[in-house]
Amino acid sequence: MIIDLRSDTVTRPTPGMMQAIMNAEVGDDVYKEDPTTNKLEQKLTDMFGMDSALFFPSGSMANQAAIKMHTQPGEQLIADKWAHVFNYEGGGVSFNSGVSCKLIDGNRGMVTAAQVEENINPPDFYHSPLTSLVCLENTTNKGGGACYDFSEIEKIRQVCDKHELGFHLDGARIWNALEAQKQNPRDYGKVFDTISVCLSKGLGTPMGSVLLGKNEIMKKAMRVRKVLGGGMRQIGFMTAAGIYALDNHRNRLAEDHKKASEISEMLAKQSYVKKVESTETNIVIFYLAEAISEEKFMNDLLQKSVKISSMGQGKLRIVTHFDYTDAMHEKLLQMLSDYNK
Amino acid sequence: MIIDLRSDTVTRPTPGMMQAIMNAEVGDDVYKEDPTTNKLEQKLTDMFGMDSALFFPSGSMANQAAIKMHTQPGEQLIADKWAHVFNYEGGGVSFNSGVSCKLIDGNRGMVTAAQVEENINPPDFYHSPLTSLVCLENTTNKGGGACYDFSEIEKIRQVCDKHELGFHLDGARIWNALEAQKQNPRDYGKVFDTISVCLSKGLGTPMGSVLLGKNEIMKKAMRVRKVLGGGMRQIGFMTAAGIYALDNHRNRLAEDHKKASEISEMLAKQSYVKKVESTETNIVIFYLAEAISEEKFMNDLLQKSVKISSMGQGKLRIVTHFDYTDAMHEKLLQMLSDYNK
Amino acid sequence: MIIDLRSDTVTRPTPGMMQAIMNAEVGDDVYKEDPTTNKLEQKLTDMFGMDSALFFPSGSMANQAAIKMHTQPGEQLIADKWAHVFNYEGGGVSFNSGVSCKLIDGNRGMVTAAQVEENINPPDFYHSPLTSLVCLENTTNKGGGACYDFSEIEKIRQVCDKHELGFHLDGARIWNALEAQKQNPRDYGKVFDTISVCLSKGLGTPMGSVLLGKNEIMKKAMRVRKVLGGGMRQIGFMTAAGIYALDNHRNRLAEDHKKASEISEMLAKQSYVKKVESTETNIVIFYLAEAISEEKFMNDLLQKSVKISSMGQGKLRIVTHFDYTDAMHEKLLQMLSDYNK
Amino acid sequence: MIIDLRSDTVTRPTPGMMQAIMNAEVGDDVYKEDPTTNKLEQKLTDMFGMDSALFFPSGSMANQAAIKMHTQPGEQLIADKWAHVFNYEGGGVSFNSGVSCKLIDGNRGMVTAAQVEENINPPDFYHSPLTSLVCLENTTNKGGGACYDFSEIEKIRQVCDKHELGFHLDGARIWNALEAQKQNPRDYGKVFDTISVCLSKGLGTPMGSVLLGKNEIMKKAMRVRKVLGGGMRQIGFMTAAGIYALDNHRNRLAEDHKKASEISEMLAKQSYVKKVESTETNIVIFYLAEAISEEKFMNDLLQKSVKISSMGQGKLRIVTHFDYTDAMHEKLLQMLSDYNK
Repeated sequence: MIIDLRSDTVTRPTPGMMQAIMNAEVGDDVYKEDPTTNKLEQKLTDMFGMDSALFFPSGSMANQAAIKMHTQPGEQLIADKWAHVFNYEGGGVSFNSGVSCKLIDGNRGMVTAAQVEENINPPDFYHSPLTSLVCLENTTNKGGGACYDFSEIEKIRQVCDKHELGFHLDGARIWNALEAQKQNPRDYGKVFDTISVCLSKGLGTPMGSVLLGKNEIMKKAMRVRKVLGGGMRQIGFMTAAGIYALDNHRNRLAEDHKKASEISEMLAKQSYVKKVESTETNIVIFYLAEAISEEKFMNDLLQKSVKISSMGQGKLRIVTHFDYTDAMHEKLLQMLSDYNK
Repeated sequence: MIIDLRSDTVTRPTPGMMQAIMNAEVGDDVYKEDPTTNKLEQKLTDMFGMDSALFFPSGSMANQAAIKMHTQPGEQLIADKWAHVFNYEGGGVSFNSGVSCKLIDGNRGMVTAAQVEENINPPDFYHSPLTSLVCLENTTNKGGGACYDFSEIEKIRQVCDKHELGFHLDGARIWNALEAQKQNPRDYGKVFDTISVCLSKGLGTPMGSVLLGKNEIMKKAMRVRKVLGGGMRQIGFMTAAGIYALDNHRNRLAEDHKKASEISEMLAKQSYVKKVESTETNIVIFYLAEAISEEKFMNDLLQKSVKISSMGQGKLRIVTHFDYTDAMHEKLLQMLSDYNK
Repeated sequence: MIIDLRSDTVTRPTPGMMQAIMNAEVGDDVYKEDPTTNKLEQKLTDMFGMDSALFFPSGSMANQAAIKMHTQPGEQLIADKWAHVFNYEGGGVSFNSGVSCKLIDGNRGMVTAAQVEENINPPDFYHSPLTSLVCLENTTNKGGGACYDFSEIEKIRQVCDKHELGFHLDGARIWNALEAQKQNPRDYGKVFDTISVCLSKGLGTPMGSVLLGKNEIMKKAMRVRKVLGGGMRQIGFMTAAGIYALDNHRNRLAEDHKKASEISEMLAKQSYVKKVESTETNIVIFYLAEAISEEKFMNDLLQKSVKISSMGQGKLRIVTHFDYTDAMHEKLLQMLSDYNK
Repeated sequence: MIIDLRSDTVTRPTPGMMQAIMNAEVGDDVYKEDPTTNKLEQKLTDMFGMDSALFFPSGSMANQAAIKMHTQPGEQLIADKWAHVFNYEGGGVSFNSGVSCKLIDGNRGMVTAAQVEENINPPDFYHSPLTSLVCLENTTNKGGGACYDFSEIEKIRQVCDKHELGFHLDGARIWNALEAQKQNPRDYGKVFDTISVCLSKGLGTPMGSVLLGKNEIMKKAMRVRKVLGGGMRQIGFMTAAGIYALDNHRNRLAEDHKKASEISEMLAKQSYVKKVESTETNIVIFYLAEAISEEKFMNDLLQKSVKISSMGQGKLRIVTHFDYTDAMHEKLLQMLSDYNK
């Protein structure tokens, strides 16, 4: 039994989801004739109170497409220094859109409205890139699953309005934020111009993300998806899994959060752990005491069939998810408690 | 009963393929831990005698990634004027790679070695883009499924060697060419640096293409797929369909070709048809006599539940495929025979 | 005495122009505080009846900036197959703007309104690039200095209006066209959205081009020039030469045309010449009879201190200009007459 | 009499420099036939002990070209957060090269070898951009003319060697650094792969920068300059000024430094000044006490014909240069001493 806690992307479909995949009615989605994909897109459009939605093969492509749709080459976007779009999408912001990133030294991956405002370049000073977009991430990945206070998001929206900036949310783990803060997706649909939501992390589908947005900007989405190579054919088999997950898996995210919280508490008690970040959702970030090296610790766990991941520079990450069972949880807690004794 | 002959992309999986999808063993392919995807990639690597393979969400992305891997911004590729990479990939050659296309006025989408050679820019004349890649398509899409004479391909390879150019094959319908000319995939693996092969056209899977190539160039493939957003998670459900198709569907392409040929012959006899292109594989291209408009003809067919597609400027296209049954075929031939009488 | 007929770019300033350079009042043009440059820009704005003008270090940059200002990455422009912007600007259309070129097989570098219209991609068919710009060149370089019939330009304007396309003129040799057809620059200012005009060819300044346009599009010009690195400091020394040339050199272009015409007539009589293109301005294009190779002919001339240029594939080019004196002209005519006898 | 201390770019040529401009022998530099430009490039090549040099219309273009020559789209460069290439080149790093910037929170625009090393992304982790270049600036502009300790530069070179990174110097004010630290240009030629040097700041020419480098990388320079539109014709008039400046103006930079130092000391004594950065060369950076607004202070100076510049967020900048005379200096010191009394 391997306990894979490297990411919530590693989950495999449940029997119910497999049944949904088998029963999917499909068509050619490049012609927008796949009824299941159209249904998923409509379902999410309604859920978030947005105008339009489009399915993408990955969250990276959904984010990159949104950034392209909001910007022109040479412009600049504002994000936290830990933003996924800057750090983990292969340099796509510059590659796909010719856009640079003004990174803010935020708090656990989150920025404030005041920080955003003071990082906007003066629009008539043409030596500097024109600021045209703000990207948030919620929950934050590198920030350890931290959730924004929604009122701060609303303040950032006001800054965007004042300075005519686009406003995008990388909602790779928006479902965790909604669960943790008991919010309605429509709250998010109201403040953002575009939102990418992932179906293959906490929700447990095999693949795919959906980009939601207002009509004015989403009318560019089909062209951008096409040029990036994201148009697929009978993809309804995969989007059927998305519909199933929205109907059946959202309400169990609380359990992932509970388990993450218990891991966090257990780690906090251990002498070999220097620090554990506050754990709000399904991600636990912690740092080892200096006596123990990352390599050794990860290797020792691996010997016991536990996989976790390193985020570089002494930062370790554990992510709970659907396939992390109660039995695994018990075993892991025991292992962490016994380690180094 | 709708007879959809717009493209061979519209097919739906057979029960056998659905079974393969259900039984697929999956993992996270972003970590290259999806055993089914790895198996498909290995299977194709072996079949073509190439070094390496990578699965992509679409043929457009596989081609675009290859072009990026072969070129630097500002360079130029050579292709036929009807090339899919120039005409139907959203302008991706320039968007993704900053590369321009020197288009040759070829024959039915095919170019000769002599034409390639005379379109290479002098490498030391820096006013013109540096020519760095030749892209062929086989069979040709806009050229009506025409197949290259393999010896011409070998001559083009020699031109590429002489001038140090990369050599890519858009093999969206390579399976049809192999069937029509009774060739071995290894013949192709020997002459091209990279080949994209599509699984969702004649082979009938829901989605996806695979890029094959030599190690030296394929080592860039993971980075390029990542930055374009083509990395997917438990994609083994879809690649299982690919393995099934390779094992079970290749030998039935001859039937698609036979039907296309019969449609072609029927059209050639009709007074409302001005010209039918020679039909070598599963695509029939024809032009209406001037008395009949494209719109009217397509609409009349649509009234009888038949969908075909227009390629612009009076050019109509019919594509046969797996889901086009014998019963449909009989009905269509009768319909074409009776039309306008 | 070297007779350099490779291009009209090789001219050196006259004493009068040197005096203008010496007397120039200068400031920092990056702050738009160079009075001479501002004056040149205003002078050309008035001359063409445009809204705004900006000086660039080269004609290539002026064209490339205009293309960038008119387009977004992934879009397509329409031009003749011999267009300078496609052939001789280093692949800049794709490099700088991510834009592809739909090239028309025109007549001596010139296209018709009908050809333009049938090469526009359908705007709602997102598989193909969105057509957004038409670029003409007048006079044509590779087309041998041919001039558009102005009424055809007006018809192309109507096509652009109908399909909402931008309309740019590469006016590297617009001064020759104006002279040959006795037209007013304001005629051109009325039909084009942007026009690049060169000061260093027929007008004989050391360097530089100016981009003219309507306010709506020119408001992007400073940012684009900045990002391409075209902002210079006390450039008034060079723009003073431009003002001088506009005041003193335009009326002598007729002489260049006359000389070119005489060379053309002389070549037409020679048995070693297969064909001479009709010569309308200062460029003579001709092809050698098969018995004589390009290399040999150019070398033989070089032995007699005459430099001309090859345009590839048997095409030779002679360009007359300010520094090509009457004495040189007589000598050259004699030489061409005597050659091969 | 206007005292313009906004930048050292505002200088006008001296009579001696004007004479050099008048006497320049010129040719067409696009064909590399301009003898004066070739001479300047050779002179700098020798001075720095590099292999090759190329003249550019601006320092921005020289830097941007170097970055393009060192990188591929999607890659990442490392620089200080105040780097000119990131902040003041119009977003060119991403626009021209598709490259992102990993910015270090350095000291007055300068980074350490240790900081560089810990900001290199792991080369086999394809989710993050591949790090391929380190860019330094010396002296630093936004860092107030601070100079690197040369031994730190040598250590950074070692980091670059170890990780196979390119190493570029933005030497817009390298002449000031050489003067302040009494170093030889050959020291710099030994450690950097490419260096851009500006002729129009402290050296006082009208325009232009030169990029120096090793052959392996410089062989791409002509193509990149062409595609960016930086090729100019009889540019020898401007490069003659560069030769003159190298021969005559380098030895007077010490005077600019002395004046800057005296302004710095004067400001440090004033109650209306909160802080003055240590002044090592010709740039003085200071911050006003909170009681006085930037706008008011700059306006008050402007009333007395003194222009200085703001760098945003309370940071003011004074730059001394050739056209800032002893008389102006005395007047300014008095004015700063009297202000607010």
